[in-house]
Amino acid sequence: MRITSILVAAILATGAAAQTITSPDGNVKLDFSLQQGRPTYQLTYKGKDVVKPSHLGLELAKDKHASKGMDETDLIDGFVIQKTSTSTFDETWKPVWGETATIRNHYNELEVNLTQPATERNIIIRFRVYDDGMGLRYEFPQQKTLNYFLIKEERTEFAMAGDHIAWWLPGDYDTQEQETQETRLSGIRERFNTSVNWGNSSVAVFSPTGVQTSLQMKTDDGLYINIHEAACVDYATMHLEMVDAQTKTLSEKLGGGSNAYTPAPAPSAYPLPKPFTFVSHLTPDATGLKGAMQTPCQTPWRTIIVSDDARDMLSSNLILNLNEPCKIEDTSWIHPVKYCGVWWEMIVGKSAWNYTDEFPSIKLDQIDWSKVKPNGRHAANNEKVKRYIDFAAKNGLDEVLVEGWNVGWEDWANMWKRDVFDFVTPYPDFDIKMLNEYAHAKGVKLLMHHETSSSTQNYERHMEKAYNLMNKYGYDAVKSGYVGDIIPRGDHHYSQSMNNHYLYCIQEAAKHHVMVNAHEAVRPTGLCRTWPNLVGNESARGTEYEAFGGSRPDHTLILPFTRLQGGPMDYTPGIFETQLSNWSDNPNWVHTTLVGQLALYLTMYSPLQMAADLPENYERFDDAFQFIRDVAVDWDDSKYLEAEPADYITVARKAKGTDNWFVGGKCDENGHLSIVKLDFLDKERKYDCTIYADAKDAHYQNNPKAYTITRKTVKKGDVLKLKQAPGGGFAVSIIAK
Amino acid sequence: MRITSILVAAILATGAAAQTITSPDGNVKLDFSLQQGRPTYQLTYKGKDVVKPSHLGLELAKDKHASKGMDETDLIDGFVIQKTSTSTFDETWKPVWGETATIRNHYNELEVNLTQPATERNIIIRFRVYDDGMGLRYEFPQQKTLNYFLIKEERTEFAMAGDHIAWWLPGDYDTQEQETQETRLSGIRERFNTSVNWGNSSVAVFSPTGVQTSLQMKTDDGLYINIHEAACVDYATMHLEMVDAQTKTLSEKLGGGSNAYTPAPAPSAYPLPKPFTFVSHLTPDATGLKGAMQTPCQTPWRTIIVSDDARDMLSSNLILNLNEPCKIEDTSWIHPVKYCGVWWEMIVGKSAWNYTDEFPSIKLDQIDWSKVKPNGRHAANNEKVKRYIDFAAKNGLDEVLVEGWNVGWEDWANMWKRDVFDFVTPYPDFDIKMLNEYAHAKGVKLLMHHETSSSTQNYERHMEKAYNLMNKYGYDAVKSGYVGDIIPRGDHHYSQSMNNHYLYCIQEAAKHHVMVNAHEAVRPTGLCRTWPNLVGNESARGTEYEAFGGSRPDHTLILPFTRLQGGPMDYTPGIFETQLSNWSDNPNWVHTTLVGQLALYLTMYSPLQMAADLPENYERFDDAFQFIRDVAVDWDDSKYLEAEPADYITVARKAKGTDNWFVGGKCDENGHLSIVKLDFLDKERKYDCTIYADAKDAHYQNNPKAYTITRKTVKKGDVLKLKQAPGGGFAVSIIAK
Repeated sequence: MRITSILVAAILATGAAAQTITSPDGNVKLDFSLQQGRPTYQLTYKGKDVVKPSHLGLELAKDKHASKGMDETDLIDGFVIQKTSTSTFDETWKPVWGETATIRNHYNELEVNLTQPATERNIIIRFRVYDDGMGLRYEFPQQKTLNYFLIKEERTEFAMAGDHIAWWLPGDYDTQEQETQETRLSGIRERFNTSVNWGNSSVAVFSPTGVQTSLQMKTDDGLYINIHEAACVDYATMHLEMVDAQTKTLSEKLGGGSNAYTPAPAPSAYPLPKPFTFVSHLTPDATGLKGAMQTPCQTPWRTIIVSDDARDMLSSNLILNLNEPCKIEDTSWIHPVKYCGVWWEMIVGKSAWNYTDEFPSIKLDQIDWSKVKPNGRHAANNEKVKRYIDFAAKNGLDEVLVEGWNVGWEDWANMWKRDVFDFVTPYPDFDIKMLNEYAHAKGVKLLMHHETSSSTQNYERHMEKAYNLMNKYGYDAVKSGYVGDIIPRGDHHYSQSMNNHYLYCIQEAAKHHVMVNAHEAVRPTGLCRTWPNLVGNESARGTEYEAFGGSRPDHTLILPFTRLQGGPMDYTPGIFETQLSNWSDNPNWVHTTLVGQLALYLTMYSPLQMAADLPENYERFDDAFQFIRDVAVDWDDSKYLEAEPADYITVARKAKGTDNWFVGGKCDENGHLSIVKLDFLDKERKYDCTIYADAKDAHYQNNPKAYTITRKTVKKGDVLKLKQAPGGGFAVSIIAK
Repeated sequence: MRITSILVAAILATGAAAQTITSPDGNVKLDFSLQQGRPTYQLTYKGKDVVKPSHLGLELAKDKHASKGMDETDLIDGFVIQKTSTSTFDETWKPVWGETATIRNHYNELEVNLTQPATERNIIIRFRVYDDGMGLRYEFPQQKTLNYFLIKEERTEFAMAGDHIAWWLPGDYDTQEQETQETRLSGIRERFNTSVNWGNSSVAVFSPTGVQTSLQMKTDDGLYINIHEAACVDYATMHLEMVDAQTKTLSEKLGGGSNAYTPAPAPSAYPLPKPFTFVSHLTPDATGLKGAMQTPCQTPWRTIIVSDDARDMLSSNLILNLNEPCKIEDTSWIHPVKYCGVWWEMIVGKSAWNYTDEFPSIKLDQIDWSKVKPNGRHAANNEKVKRYIDFAAKNGLDEVLVEGWNVGWEDWANMWKRDVFDFVTPYPDFDIKMLNEYAHAKGVKLLMHHETSSSTQNYERHMEKAYNLMNKYGYDAVKSGYVGDIIPRGDHHYSQSMNNHYLYCIQEAAKHHVMVNAHEAVRPTGLCRTWPNLVGNESARGTEYEAFGGSRPDHTLILPFTRLQGGPMDYTPGIFETQLSNWSDNPNWVHTTLVGQLALYLTMYSPLQMAADLPENYERFDDAFQFIRDVAVDWDDSKYLEAEPADYITVARKAKGTDNWFVGGKCDENGHLSIVKLDFLDKERKYDCTIYADAKDAHYQNNPKAYTITRKTVKKGDVLKLKQAPGGGFAVSIIAK
């Protein structure tokens, strides 16, 4: 580690010359200046505009407690530069799990100390410039003149240089499970107007030009630009609202889809920026406010990843690097997990989470479960779970998820029902002691499931007992869920308080040596570096939507550019029987080929990977299932060989602690030919290579399960030509001899 | 116990003849009927109107989840009577602590089963008529057509028969610490217009004719009428909004004083009732809704206590009787408590809760308390606490409250600071182990203090550890506090979720054998019958206001009619040095005589009584302090000898398990002569009687500490003439020889 610090100047006048820093390789250049007292930055990559001059600042809420010490003058303008300093940081660190064994964190930093003379308050804006982009954040030192404040809105601008292509989700306070939209920036509003049904959007969309992050863009001159955030801790999640020619005020409220419980945002006193400018829009609390702050504190990092090579977007570690180092001292209990589970058959509708249909609604404290009439459809029963345990043991899977094991599934979501689960009481046909012992005897663990139904107070009240139960029976990982509207009413999935809740769960879990895989929680921002027991998240449209009507074939070719920037996703791939009607009444079908499903184990990086289909479906395709048995879930190295958003991704990964490589390619509905040169292999060795490929006539729509398996010996420098069918892919295992 | 059940009729047509039941003694008569499909009741007492025909019902919110099974048709009209039945109940039960050793629960009940044919929903309205009033509640049986619903507003009407005198507090979602207003009903609006400063009202007042319960009234024909509620469990607290000639819509929003965070109530679709009618107004959640319900469920009881003798209002057990029997099996650990504490000197401003003034604000996880610079004003230090323990031990007090023992008091209220206290970490000068051992060695316990700062999530997160700490060191009671605005933002002290929180704390405390005395929590509704470890509440303007500017001398002559209907108050009487400037810089003075303070131990019933003044002040008046040493805090019998709201109260109480009596009288600023006939004494015995009386020239303003102490022997039938000075009182101990 090497740190160089240079004090540039003390007490610079307003309107002073811009401060400039560049990335270590010189390609990324950041300028900071004050424009009429407003902090302003711009960013270029190899001389091309990435962000044109954009303002920074926060509007503060006028609070009823202002007289008691709450500050309320906006932190927007009236600033002078007190001091700036630059430094360099270069460190290589080892993630507990990851795509590579080590990660280099190398940046140049600009720290701008600003004073607002009218209020005698000081803030710091800190920029870190990397070879692949930059992060900036606001810092609020402790000071007598700035102790507590409420955020009305953060006003961080990102002025785009043109009408880029963008892959975006409609801004929403409660879900990110929509299908990604691909439009020019100028087309966002029209898409909002025409797409009345976002697939599974909640009703908490806030503006007809509001989008979520991570937002991936591509410019006409070949730049890839990504805007997201890093280290969102005790702060509301950021959305982006784009200014266009029709924008009259920020945070335009949508008509039909507005959430009746969220107060309309207060209008801003500041002028609109120019069109094609994104402005930050934080998730509100129940009162419409965006955050309560106490100094010393800071915002999350606002990140911009940029390159002229799409592969750099996928290999970027910028967001992880902007998070704090690991805070868990002993991480020996944290491990990657390959698992199967009692899940898909319920998603598809063949069996049920709930045990009984006897009551129109239930109250946990009023039911004698031993006397309840079973509905005969309850999946999480002893017999079935044993079947899954046997399957996991036979195939080298680490754990078995069981959903629906605990009482309360009879009426659990969207009823504003607070005391919905207790997280400790099994249904009568789930013998928790026997099943854990049965699994452990076979070298398998059960994977706990905590559906909170978004009743967060209820979950926190039971959490300690729930984790104790896990410790007692030997569970070491929990999949948690946040389906439905947040209770307390009026709160949102991505608010400051909810973000605090998710982290609280992770921290409490760590005390119990429990790994967390939170579904429907906030989109990740790299906190898995600090808390590596956060081994997964959903926070996007997962495989389950294939049973709900399907996702476009290019969906998984966007997610690595967007959702995966902040951390791994429990996408739950591996559906071999793509025609659900072949074993259920569900008419839907999976929008990939079977081999395309195999490719996802590589293109959708996660230390937690599910083999999501039913054992009986895997047994029908046992030769293909061999790849899932073989594929690693933790890596010493990863090389993105080719990539284009929404088109194709090909990646080669070296399994942790071995000389074995796995290569995966996934493409969209147009098919793709991949030429993979094996120049990453060890030149001293030979390898057994098994190629899982789409058959010639394979097609995700009408011939998805046609595949070939080819075995040969390969060495460094060999070239594989791999033809991917429409909606297909390939998967290759390369095992050192 | 005897229960008689009579089925009156099955399937009665709409508009059928009224159903009538009377109280066991026949004085109270209730009529129920449907008027154009709306449930309607009226109440008389000895033939006089108490409540004129008044509608019953609930408006339901139109929820976005209506399509998913939430019901939303109002439960207001369109009803037919399906069945009515009556029954009688007579049972005598023993409270764990109380004003009497046994309580008789004797009522006649009318159960009205209503059907709303358009929705096929059934509800029950249940009336219980006692000799001293009635309770009614709505019940929602479990049924396929009514599973979950959101309450927009409860519309229970109380149509008063005239322009009564009323003692009322301004309706407020967050405080009941105002001074009581005395006006005619017709004068409420004008008082709102003129009283811009309610003393300590929060800003959450909702209407210029909104008042709190318990509401005490007196009619021109001599009836005393009290409206309150019983058994408020998982439901929002009820306020009352009065309709007057100027009322245009219900829930008129107040201008200047409105809470910026609470959405304005939605207008009602139903016509206004006639003037002098109170309509229920529930406390909203952050979204403006009033409650989320799941069948089977019921509302709290809406209570009307009525008599032509004011003393009956004070001896009424109607509210306790309408609560469920005790749910704690082993109550042996629950006991009355007489205590002193490190408290008054901080309230007065002489010393401080906080340990340091070093930081503009603090974060608990960032302070090394051992290195912090003390401010020298911290009261909860080892030396002082030992002094209080010595004092308690010497004078037979059971416990010593210590506020400010734990870290976090530097910046604790109204800053929207979530993680404000951890409830387990003592300041460096408070040796929790040593002090508890010191106390226990002298037969005294410390009384725990948990100020939550209304950050409820923070409190719940630490609660289990906090109670464990109490168990470890031998605390058996906690004073909790809810100062400031509720976090999560937008919630209110009296909402459904907060009422659920308070009860959760009591229930969790019971598991740890901890008694609870919650300050700034919701006004009680008799739940101490069900959870007798709820030994006290503040929930009104306590003695502390004597240090904040004072309370009127009649204040404590209203509270027993109003606040105390729902349960005991930790009023913290016993201030002997009424001139605070005699020992501090505080210019305020107590608005009673010294003897008036003694009287409060009897007129303000509580099983938890503080001797609130400083030991050194008691030592100056040790002869008067003898009464505090002697007075019991738990009773076998209580006889209200005379009473008039805001004028005077005289009560005789028989100490638990003894033949000793204590008589107390308190009067307003006009003074009062009490003639107390000792006909309640055992005729076989003689008694040592000690009379603590105001001196002839005593006066609460200019001569408050002039008193006489007289001793004599008395027997049954003797008469005591006791002259009370303006703002004074008397206290008498009658000890069996």
